[in-house]
Amino acid sequence: MNATLVSQLFRELQKLPILDPHTHVRADQPVAKHLGDLLGYHYYTELANSSRGTPVKLPDDPQARIDYVWPHLPQLRGTVQFDWMMGISEILLGIPRADWWTQPKETIVKRAQQVIESKSYASLVWEKSNLTQAYMTNLFDEDLSKHADARLVPCLRTDDLVFHLVKQKTLPRLEQASGIKVGESLDRFNEGLSKIFERYAGWKMGYAALGLPPNYIQAGEVSRSQAELVHGRLAAGEHLSEEQRYAWAAYMLDRIAAECARVKAPFVVMVGADREVYPQGVPAGQDLFRCDSHLRGLDGLFNKYADVRFPVMVVSDTAGLELAAQGWIRHNVFVFSHWWYANNPEDIRREVRRRLDVLPRNKMIGFHSDGYSSEFILPKFNTYRLVLAKVLAEKIEESQVAGSSVTEPLDTKAALELAERILIQNPKALFGIR
Amino acid sequence: MNATLVSQLFRELQKLPILDPHTHVRADQPVAKHLGDLLGYHYYTELANSSRGTPVKLPDDPQARIDYVWPHLPQLRGTVQFDWMMGISEILLGIPRADWWTQPKETIVKRAQQVIESKSYASLVWEKSNLTQAYMTNLFDEDLSKHADARLVPCLRTDDLVFHLVKQKTLPRLEQASGIKVGESLDRFNEGLSKIFERYAGWKMGYAALGLPPNYIQAGEVSRSQAELVHGRLAAGEHLSEEQRYAWAAYMLDRIAAECARVKAPFVVMVGADREVYPQGVPAGQDLFRCDSHLRGLDGLFNKYADVRFPVMVVSDTAGLELAAQGWIRHNVFVFSHWWYANNPEDIRREVRRRLDVLPRNKMIGFHSDGYSSEFILPKFNTYRLVLAKVLAEKIEESQVAGSSVTEPLDTKAALELAERILIQNPKALFGIR
Amino acid sequence: MNATLVSQLFRELQKLPILDPHTHVRADQPVAKHLGDLLGYHYYTELANSSRGTPVKLPDDPQARIDYVWPHLPQLRGTVQFDWMMGISEILLGIPRADWWTQPKETIVKRAQQVIESKSYASLVWEKSNLTQAYMTNLFDEDLSKHADARLVPCLRTDDLVFHLVKQKTLPRLEQASGIKVGESLDRFNEGLSKIFERYAGWKMGYAALGLPPNYIQAGEVSRSQAELVHGRLAAGEHLSEEQRYAWAAYMLDRIAAECARVKAPFVVMVGADREVYPQGVPAGQDLFRCDSHLRGLDGLFNKYADVRFPVMVVSDTAGLELAAQGWIRHNVFVFSHWWYANNPEDIRREVRRRLDVLPRNKMIGFHSDGYSSEFILPKFNTYRLVLAKVLAEKIEESQVAGSSVTEPLDTKAALELAERILIQNPKALFGIR
Repeated sequence: MNATLVSQLFRELQKLPILDPHTHVRADQPVAKHLGDLLGYHYYTELANSSRGTPVKLPDDPQARIDYVWPHLPQLRGTVQFDWMMGISEILLGIPRADWWTQPKETIVKRAQQVIESKSYASLVWEKSNLTQAYMTNLFDEDLSKHADARLVPCLRTDDLVFHLVKQKTLPRLEQASGIKVGESLDRFNEGLSKIFERYAGWKMGYAALGLPPNYIQAGEVSRSQAELVHGRLAAGEHLSEEQRYAWAAYMLDRIAAECARVKAPFVVMVGADREVYPQGVPAGQDLFRCDSHLRGLDGLFNKYADVRFPVMVVSDTAGLELAAQGWIRHNVFVFSHWWYANNPEDIRREVRRRLDVLPRNKMIGFHSDGYSSEFILPKFNTYRLVLAKVLAEKIEESQVAGSSVTEPLDTKAALELAERILIQNPKALFGIR
Repeated sequence: MNATLVSQLFRELQKLPILDPHTHVRADQPVAKHLGDLLGYHYYTELANSSRGTPVKLPDDPQARIDYVWPHLPQLRGTVQFDWMMGISEILLGIPRADWWTQPKETIVKRAQQVIESKSYASLVWEKSNLTQAYMTNLFDEDLSKHADARLVPCLRTDDLVFHLVKQKTLPRLEQASGIKVGESLDRFNEGLSKIFERYAGWKMGYAALGLPPNYIQAGEVSRSQAELVHGRLAAGEHLSEEQRYAWAAYMLDRIAAECARVKAPFVVMVGADREVYPQGVPAGQDLFRCDSHLRGLDGLFNKYADVRFPVMVVSDTAGLELAAQGWIRHNVFVFSHWWYANNPEDIRREVRRRLDVLPRNKMIGFHSDGYSSEFILPKFNTYRLVLAKVLAEKIEESQVAGSSVTEPLDTKAALELAERILIQNPKALFGIR
Repeated sequence: MNATLVSQLFRELQKLPILDPHTHVRADQPVAKHLGDLLGYHYYTELANSSRGTPVKLPDDPQARIDYVWPHLPQLRGTVQFDWMMGISEILLGIPRADWWTQPKETIVKRAQQVIESKSYASLVWEKSNLTQAYMTNLFDEDLSKHADARLVPCLRTDDLVFHLVKQKTLPRLEQASGIKVGESLDRFNEGLSKIFERYAGWKMGYAALGLPPNYIQAGEVSRSQAELVHGRLAAGEHLSEEQRYAWAAYMLDRIAAECARVKAPFVVMVGADREVYPQGVPAGQDLFRCDSHLRGLDGLFNKYADVRFPVMVVSDTAGLELAAQGWIRHNVFVFSHWWYANNPEDIRREVRRRLDVLPRNKMIGFHSDGYSSEFILPKFNTYRLVLAKVLAEKIEESQVAGSSVTEPLDTKAALELAERILIQNPKALFGIR
């Protein structure tokens, strides 16, 4: 590692503004109200649960969540997840990292709350983060008609329309949100869906998004009669067989892609998470993935909707090169950031290098935070920036060694232009223009 | 990265002659006739198709292919694929890389054509590349009896005998090539196959080769009666069921291995490409792979034909360690280079390191270009050489740190001997002697 | 690579004592009697078989095994496996590496035997290795009641109770070992099993261990009546169907976990080896793995036995991040070292980096040797130490570049504390206390 060069690149990358193309930041409360909203998030509760050895139910109260995590912090020390908390602490809350090990919990909480409860806290977070835009994750029945802050971009999360419709009370919610009696017929349901997409288009949505389980296979068309049958059972509150659940998912995936085509919105597909496989886990800390999860079940979707742009995320490392190959040859698949379990320095490093080496410049989106509260955005981008600086430094050094007959000449300036391209210009071009 | 050491190794590696053990170079036209034969190759058309966002049918004409790719070159800039074009441009065509961004298309084409159309162009390419031998990919019914250039080694590609026999008109072609009425019976077909192998043996073939789809499983013997049934249907031009197609493939795989044993030729197996899954892609830019593609379906083949040498390539990164493990314990599996989507610097780096660490020295073949035109050989080897230099430098440094009680002492000289071993001596020993 | 820093860390890591949490060292003969016990081990015989190209049956006699391997040593030169032999040679036998290439076989053997046959050889090996404890792999019917050396910790290998019961003569052996007529009924069998666990608990066992094939899926409970049926067939020496074999394995896996819970022993699960797929291989050189082997078939086991600690090893690289994710969220899964084909510098490097970045400090076990003879422990740990030094150096450099708002500050001292934690304190805490 050429520490001087990495350092120089990292300093420059830290000066870039942040456009965060996928978050769970809430329009009505984009920052935390309590330190427990941060330290009680699943990054820390799942590690505290993991390290304690005996599962203990996670409390709801923010202060109680701090109590849940606090005794286990020494075990979390040195993890990248804890580094994110420390980034928040040092840069946004003004509490040096070292104080966490020398001051009592009560002091840390008190100092944090002084900042968090200050009037300008939200502005401070956004300004110190140099954050220009964050894309949200919105339920289909959210009412964003009064949402006025253009820095928080609505994105339509469609999972509830595809999976678990009974549990999620999808039909009554869709009826309520669309004003259409969606239980009456499949056509009415589809009208309701169209209405939702039109509302979101009116709200200048960034994209529609859907999470798919590992090895989901879109096996051809679902017949209209089959879809009608399943709709009827859903409307009647009847139990669906596994086959019927699959048929509905396949039908809706197709419908959502069609709506994306109609309103010219990208369709973000997030592939590979298996939900709720570890029941003793804390909320959002119960999901895993499978290393045999491939992307080939989506060929039909990508092929059929040739005019829809599909930015794709994968939770597994094993699908990394497969995803790069998709973005490499397919005109409508974009390689989207580093997600969840694959969002760790070693796997980011490998993917960044692969992607920079083989993808057209406009086919990759550098990074997203997935943060549910704006505070996480900066430290997570900083982790990425450090890895990116390492990869770019390596490429600069290689270009110096090899010369222009072997590699593209790359200096610091060109490397930073490339970084800006994948971090800012590409998501703007992909999600911002319609 | 120890830039001084990497640089020193890279310079030395660049002085080595090139033996390229797998190409698609054609005996009758080993170099391009037009810049469009190079810039219009799938490395660039697929990226142009990918970056343009909207699929446009690829024209046939070389000049039109340049027009197809040209506007998208800024998006391709910095990819390793484009670096190969720049290597050709700088070293073989005498056009500096920078000129591509400052001179109009017409000028670049004109300057390129002046070199390409010169009489000594083919010699120039081979001499500047220091290329001693390139192994070809030949159809079973090619007539190479007049092929006299020993630098271009015939290799028998057998895919048309195993898959898609109707589409490829295999039976009439085999009848024509062998002079045997191969439609009459399975025995006659096998005689035709033997005839082909004997012709190729007479032409001093390097090896027979076959591409297999992901997760191909050779599940035991196909009975003679079943093979006869399928042969009869093929001869009668009748439709084959999926089961019958599989039975034929399995039967032929076995037959080809038996012929390899008979004429003492290695059987190169190229595993994992899924063909034509992306219909809007350009030719040769429609194929993908699956990350769950493993090698265990070939145990039966490797075990049964213990006296056949099987050099194996994989298109996926995920099968990389599995392939290394095969070459590590099996006496007849050789680990063959870095193929297609896995042929990128990051994945080459990982595999080179793994292979150098665990394989007997004679069990790996360093690199092949897969180039369809001789010009691509040098720049693709240079990409590999740069990665190899990095890995060897790292191993040299580690040996200095750790000392002889922990790692084999490695200096520049020993490292270069190792490189020569895997790049030249091993393919010579494996493919050249019978 | 910062050679100075790596060197400094490596020297310090070499000073640490070794606790080896998984070996095949035998209580009655913890070191070799003959050089052929070392050079004739599968690390070398499998590579010799692989490099020779034609399978030759491996002889039993130690001297004959040396003859089997010796001519192929030049091909093995530079592999990490051969480096282990050289570590033994230089550090434990006092024979410099260079002598292997300049002195005749007979001289090397003679010099080695002089050391090996010396009275204090076993002590010398343990002292020079600074070895404090090695965990053994013991059969369920071994009698360790007279085993007094607390440095060699008994661990109960349970494979013979789960798979291949007829071939392994499990029932008569269990009857003999437990003194219970285990063929009489399922209850009696389970009493026998409990007796074994109690004996091992009395012997202060480290853990119970089981090897599972790739993609083993624990699909729910096996009914008592089904288990009784299979037990009856086993007791009667009758053939089991594949379904019955699976049912028995699933039933026993559950029983063993229950026994681990009862005696409070960890249950080490070693996932992914496919046994005896390469019949021409030497013993222990016939096994491979599949890159699609995932861990999700064990969810049921991990969930049900929430109070059992499951240290997990994987033979494949592809399951590496999946394993890290399991240890990351699950309270009872521990990430255990680097096993077999994945135990090579490149794959160790990746996993060490991942694990240090995302796991609670107490959830990973650094390394084990798997050595069948104590001599292998030191050189295998040295290979790991070198990789660990590289990873820690990289993390130190990154922390210097990025500063405390981005990464945990890490200096040499803190890095070494972390190393000691994963190499010594964690296995002690996990396996040593009950």
